[in-house]
Amino acid sequence: MTLPECPAAQLAQLFGSNATNAAAAADFICDRFTAVTNKLSDTTFAVDSTFLLNSAYLVFAMQLGFAMLCAGSVRAKNSMNIMLTNVLDAATGGLFYYLFGFAFAFGAPSNGFIGRHFFGLKDIPDTNFDYSYFLYQWAFAIAAAGITSGSIAERTQFVAYLIYSSFLTGFVYPVVSHWFWSADGWASPSNLDNLLFGTGVIDFAGSGVVHLVGGMAGLWGALIEGPRIGRFDHTGRPLALRGHSATLVVLGTFLLWFGWYGFNPGSFTKILSAYESGNYYGQWSAVGRTAVTTTLAGCSAALTTLFGKRILSGHWNVTDVCNGLLGGFAAITAGCSVVEPWAAIICGVVAAVVLISCNKLAEKVKFDDPLEAAQLHGGCGAWGIIFTALFAKGEYVDQVYPGKASRPHGLFMGGGGRLLGAHVIQILVIVGWVSATMGTLFFILHKLKLLRISAEDELAGMDLTRHGGFAYAYEDESHKHGIQLKKIEPNATSPSPPTEL
Amino acid sequence: MTLPECPAAQLAQLFGSNATNAAAAADFICDRFTAVTNKLSDTTFAVDSTFLLNSAYLVFAMQLGFAMLCAGSVRAKNSMNIMLTNVLDAATGGLFYYLFGFAFAFGAPSNGFIGRHFFGLKDIPDTNFDYSYFLYQWAFAIAAAGITSGSIAERTQFVAYLIYSSFLTGFVYPVVSHWFWSADGWASPSNLDNLLFGTGVIDFAGSGVVHLVGGMAGLWGALIEGPRIGRFDHTGRPLALRGHSATLVVLGTFLLWFGWYGFNPGSFTKILSAYESGNYYGQWSAVGRTAVTTTLAGCSAALTTLFGKRILSGHWNVTDVCNGLLGGFAAITAGCSVVEPWAAIICGVVAAVVLISCNKLAEKVKFDDPLEAAQLHGGCGAWGIIFTALFAKGEYVDQVYPGKASRPHGLFMGGGGRLLGAHVIQILVIVGWVSATMGTLFFILHKLKLLRISAEDELAGMDLTRHGGFAYAYEDESHKHGIQLKKIEPNATSPSPPTEL
Amino acid sequence: MTLPECPAAQLAQLFGSNATNAAAAADFICDRFTAVTNKLSDTTFAVDSTFLLNSAYLVFAMQLGFAMLCAGSVRAKNSMNIMLTNVLDAATGGLFYYLFGFAFAFGAPSNGFIGRHFFGLKDIPDTNFDYSYFLYQWAFAIAAAGITSGSIAERTQFVAYLIYSSFLTGFVYPVVSHWFWSADGWASPSNLDNLLFGTGVIDFAGSGVVHLVGGMAGLWGALIEGPRIGRFDHTGRPLALRGHSATLVVLGTFLLWFGWYGFNPGSFTKILSAYESGNYYGQWSAVGRTAVTTTLAGCSAALTTLFGKRILSGHWNVTDVCNGLLGGFAAITAGCSVVEPWAAIICGVVAAVVLISCNKLAEKVKFDDPLEAAQLHGGCGAWGIIFTALFAKGEYVDQVYPGKASRPHGLFMGGGGRLLGAHVIQILVIVGWVSATMGTLFFILHKLKLLRISAEDELAGMDLTRHGGFAYAYEDESHKHGIQLKKIEPNATSPSPPTEL
Repeated sequence: MTLPECPAAQLAQLFGSNATNAAAAADFICDRFTAVTNKLSDTTFAVDSTFLLNSAYLVFAMQLGFAMLCAGSVRAKNSMNIMLTNVLDAATGGLFYYLFGFAFAFGAPSNGFIGRHFFGLKDIPDTNFDYSYFLYQWAFAIAAAGITSGSIAERTQFVAYLIYSSFLTGFVYPVVSHWFWSADGWASPSNLDNLLFGTGVIDFAGSGVVHLVGGMAGLWGALIEGPRIGRFDHTGRPLALRGHSATLVVLGTFLLWFGWYGFNPGSFTKILSAYESGNYYGQWSAVGRTAVTTTLAGCSAALTTLFGKRILSGHWNVTDVCNGLLGGFAAITAGCSVVEPWAAIICGVVAAVVLISCNKLAEKVKFDDPLEAAQLHGGCGAWGIIFTALFAKGEYVDQVYPGKASRPHGLFMGGGGRLLGAHVIQILVIVGWVSATMGTLFFILHKLKLLRISAEDELAGMDLTRHGGFAYAYEDESHKHGIQLKKIEPNATSPSPPTEL
Repeated sequence: MTLPECPAAQLAQLFGSNATNAAAAADFICDRFTAVTNKLSDTTFAVDSTFLLNSAYLVFAMQLGFAMLCAGSVRAKNSMNIMLTNVLDAATGGLFYYLFGFAFAFGAPSNGFIGRHFFGLKDIPDTNFDYSYFLYQWAFAIAAAGITSGSIAERTQFVAYLIYSSFLTGFVYPVVSHWFWSADGWASPSNLDNLLFGTGVIDFAGSGVVHLVGGMAGLWGALIEGPRIGRFDHTGRPLALRGHSATLVVLGTFLLWFGWYGFNPGSFTKILSAYESGNYYGQWSAVGRTAVTTTLAGCSAALTTLFGKRILSGHWNVTDVCNGLLGGFAAITAGCSVVEPWAAIICGVVAAVVLISCNKLAEKVKFDDPLEAAQLHGGCGAWGIIFTALFAKGEYVDQVYPGKASRPHGLFMGGGGRLLGAHVIQILVIVGWVSATMGTLFFILHKLKLLRISAEDELAGMDLTRHGGFAYAYEDESHKHGIQLKKIEPNATSPSPPTEL
Repeated sequence: MTLPECPAAQLAQLFGSNATNAAAAADFICDRFTAVTNKLSDTTFAVDSTFLLNSAYLVFAMQLGFAMLCAGSVRAKNSMNIMLTNVLDAATGGLFYYLFGFAFAFGAPSNGFIGRHFFGLKDIPDTNFDYSYFLYQWAFAIAAAGITSGSIAERTQFVAYLIYSSFLTGFVYPVVSHWFWSADGWASPSNLDNLLFGTGVIDFAGSGVVHLVGGMAGLWGALIEGPRIGRFDHTGRPLALRGHSATLVVLGTFLLWFGWYGFNPGSFTKILSAYESGNYYGQWSAVGRTAVTTTLAGCSAALTTLFGKRILSGHWNVTDVCNGLLGGFAAITAGCSVVEPWAAIICGVVAAVVLISCNKLAEKVKFDDPLEAAQLHGGCGAWGIIFTALFAKGEYVDQVYPGKASRPHGLFMGGGGRLLGAHVIQILVIVGWVSATMGTLFFILHKLKLLRISAEDELAGMDLTRHGGFAYAYEDESHKHGIQLKKIEPNATSPSPPTEL
């Protein structure tokens, strides 16, 4: 809420001529009100910036989570490779998002398709966007690339990785985020003059914009590359190519959970906004509620997976539970701010079922995604988009997306079918756009023989052939003084010479 | 401090009839004051919510810390098992604390024993409790379960784990937190009409409520299960069953340290409270002081352990130092907000001695707790309760627990013996309550043969027999291309069939 | 900005005698203004404390990052040793910085060389320093010690470590931070009456104060100790003594990145400061910009290293990229708050080149620093000091360092050469001071035969000989039930007896 101005002339008139110094008295008072108002404005900026920067740091921590989850989920011989891609997602993402990406995404005023200001942070900060906003959105952009790198792990040339990652972070993803999150976007719920189906798409923190985009890109990459050697035997039976460290998987999962508190609640970008000034219930409550719905969706997905997989596979599997948990998070991400906590539990339970089903289907069609990233972020992300269209609560939608009263909301909450229509559109256009861009790119790389590594390299592992050695060396020569000799480390000083880029 | 209201009628009267428009002038001014007051109220909610949510995220990070500490402290063959319990502490804790736990703990108005509102977050938020408060308390609840899982590691059936964890998070722990932390609790320092011994118990962040509860539950579990196979040889001599990764122990310890800054300073739940409005010293200072006392207690405990164990065992032991550090934290948790920094150092030094002594005693009586959780959280937690009763400073007690002047405080600080009396009561009732509930539960599980795994499973490791395989696979078949073959990974596609739940 | 006072007498006079109750009306209004002003003061303290405490926690997380980075970068046989030093940096640092360090650094009023108040936190909090400030500075102090421990890893006696770490954290580092960061410091940019070269040194977050100090100390330690056995063969050819886990290196690097958001943006220590009250651009923007420049410097350094090392060594090396990234961070730390984002990219690119060059030089002169700490923190830190003197933007300098208008700034930004002069002085005095203190200390320890471990211990590894056993045990006796026996764990119950301290 904006504080009222304090026009001294007006107050002076009210004091009237009988007061000896009406004008001076009014000045005296209004000067103080102005100072207070300015200080409150400063305070609001400082509080919101603190909130947004903390959220950005948490989202950044997800990149560490991805790195550990990916490393643990692949075989030891490829762990350096995949960790390098995760570090570079952040690094190339930083440069490209600074140069182009942020401008494409949020460069208003613009058209509905793509932004066109703020290249290289020119004219930032302005009244709408401060540096902290850029940092927050950068952390989001690199998450999308991180998702995709999981799908094509253990068999992709490093140069292909560099190309697709830059293209995804610098162009494909920013355009999608413009559509749904920029006030100019053609499907944005903030594009008040031109709301798609009178509602726009409610993808609060990006089940579609981030997770479906990353998952679809991974789907195309993994499809075009084909499965890893040994993933399916000659009869077509799937064989588990187990990741090398469940500890890293759990570490990565918990870090992603931790970071998701920046991803979802942080997507408000401001915490000091009242819905009715002076009331205990305000945006700070909605931020907290969003953290709660996020938590509950993940928890219920984890438990559903635990018991579901116990029935299906006969054991209690920690890595499956971790993936189920993440599936719940990916699903709740779209609607986290506009649903009730009880609905989040439904969201999580179904997300777990979706993930298990997608994984079954993937095995059936011999689709190999080492991180289950396409299934998890794509499948559960798509479910989350639909879920939001079913369970979004009208009151919350109106609070979180102000500027228009009585917005369409969830079908099951009496909000009509318009939101569902918009959300079906969202899924279709994301699938279409990512297929047209990333699918084409992966296909071109494939044709140019830049996509998949050689079978020899794949068997030996990329760390040895491309990254200078094996990631681990638990024992060394000198260790024999004291205990027995066992040499695991490959000869680091003479890696097999690189034969391709 | 509440801002004064601005009754326009009263101001108009003061302006008097000579001012042409006294009523309008007063309205003009008072409208602005009201707006400012409301905005300041909004600001306070936003700042406190930001503080509390950040604290909740930090406390949640402790669950990751527990997972890594536990994983590193057990043998590799059981690391998936214990990490799964840590993930599930958070997940089952999320559902049960949402459905029942929070209501039992904080559902006011109620009786002194148990809360009875807010089931399934009904009527949240209200003026006292926002979603962020629930999230913060949930993160606390799962910590208690995490402590206990360490004590019974490496030999407990998974189904037993699921049962006790739900019972502890959903009922046993919430009831204890109601007693000491809800304004209705019979021993709460905020139950002003009915203060136990005229003081109530000062267990600020839960040396008793969390650590002693978790530790006592672990004590009973570990006692009833008996030691792991091989922990004591046939002559009764203790043998070290070393954890499989000191790196994970250090990682977990540092994460717990990091998270403790949410646990202890965060327990203020609000940071924007003045002790005297306009002064530089306020609750924000007390929050900072709490972070400092926490730090110093951990540091001094670590150093005491370092030199103590050097003398006792002849080497500088990093895992012992880590446990000593955590013992210092567990001890300072009760009094962290009401003691001087120098007293925190005493707290830490004694905590280290307590932990070393408890461990000696445990070995003597053939008690086996793989994480030393009963000794650390139980022993040092109990010491922390006593410490607070000795060293709490009157001035700080009055600030942190307002509503009553000149409260009883530390015996050594001239505050009399009443606080010590109340704190002895706290130890007794926690020991009694946890023994009656968790002790009984573990005993029933034991009688039903649901508690301990078979000797065969214990020797083979639970990961292999129950969780689908070994946690690590540093080499694989294909690795022989390039270096020698060494197969560590068990055959993941054919785990031994589960013979029990 | 300070809010104006509201003197009721003055307002009463303005109301004049015609208003019936001028004095009462003025009291009425001014009481309310006073209350609002006080509440705004409270709010500012709370917001700034929240910001500073969060920053302190993030900087503390860097200690975990150092521990993991160091552990992964050394051989497995020494990983417990180095992790113990990292834990103890924090623990001994906590005590010594509490007792002496903070007083030496910030104990104003004092002379330009060393502080002399606040021993044991006496008289804290006062109007300038709250507990949170101490905590923040403690986290900085232990970082310096953490840097040094990397340089002398794998060959240093534990007792030597304890001595130098205490001396560095408790005396050497605090004195340097007094010079440049205390308002009394002889080279501080806040010492307005006595600005060195009319400018003082702009070392915002400590490329010099922290990184160059830590790196120089490491340089002397590593020089005096000499290289590890096997680092150079008898012909002088360097051999890689690879760290035992690239995963830990990546984990540590990401944690350091995460923590650097506390280190650099946090160094403002306050976020609620307007440059012009009521404007959207204020210190909160500068904090965000600092996070952005930090990010971009790291990203560009990482990419430069990636391609540079690809050309030089023929493979894509993740650990080198990690070190490059950290070199970019160390370099931008001095100027992060006063340069444009585009300049940060230049900073990072050059930092990567500096690091690669320093490493080449180190190999040439047979200097062995297992973590490249002297090269990275010393070399890139020194570059960062120069960089700031070249690229600091006048407008930003005036905002970040108020109290004097039109300050000297970057040479390439039209700010003249005085800043460069001051910064050259900074490098010289830091190199001189650290050499005189730490160099001497290491030399004395060397002469007393307290510095380097025996060749026998070095070959066997310190974990086995000094720390009670090997850090890892992936298999154990019982594992043979089910799969084959392979014993890696040394006999933990009978470590070789310690022969020296």
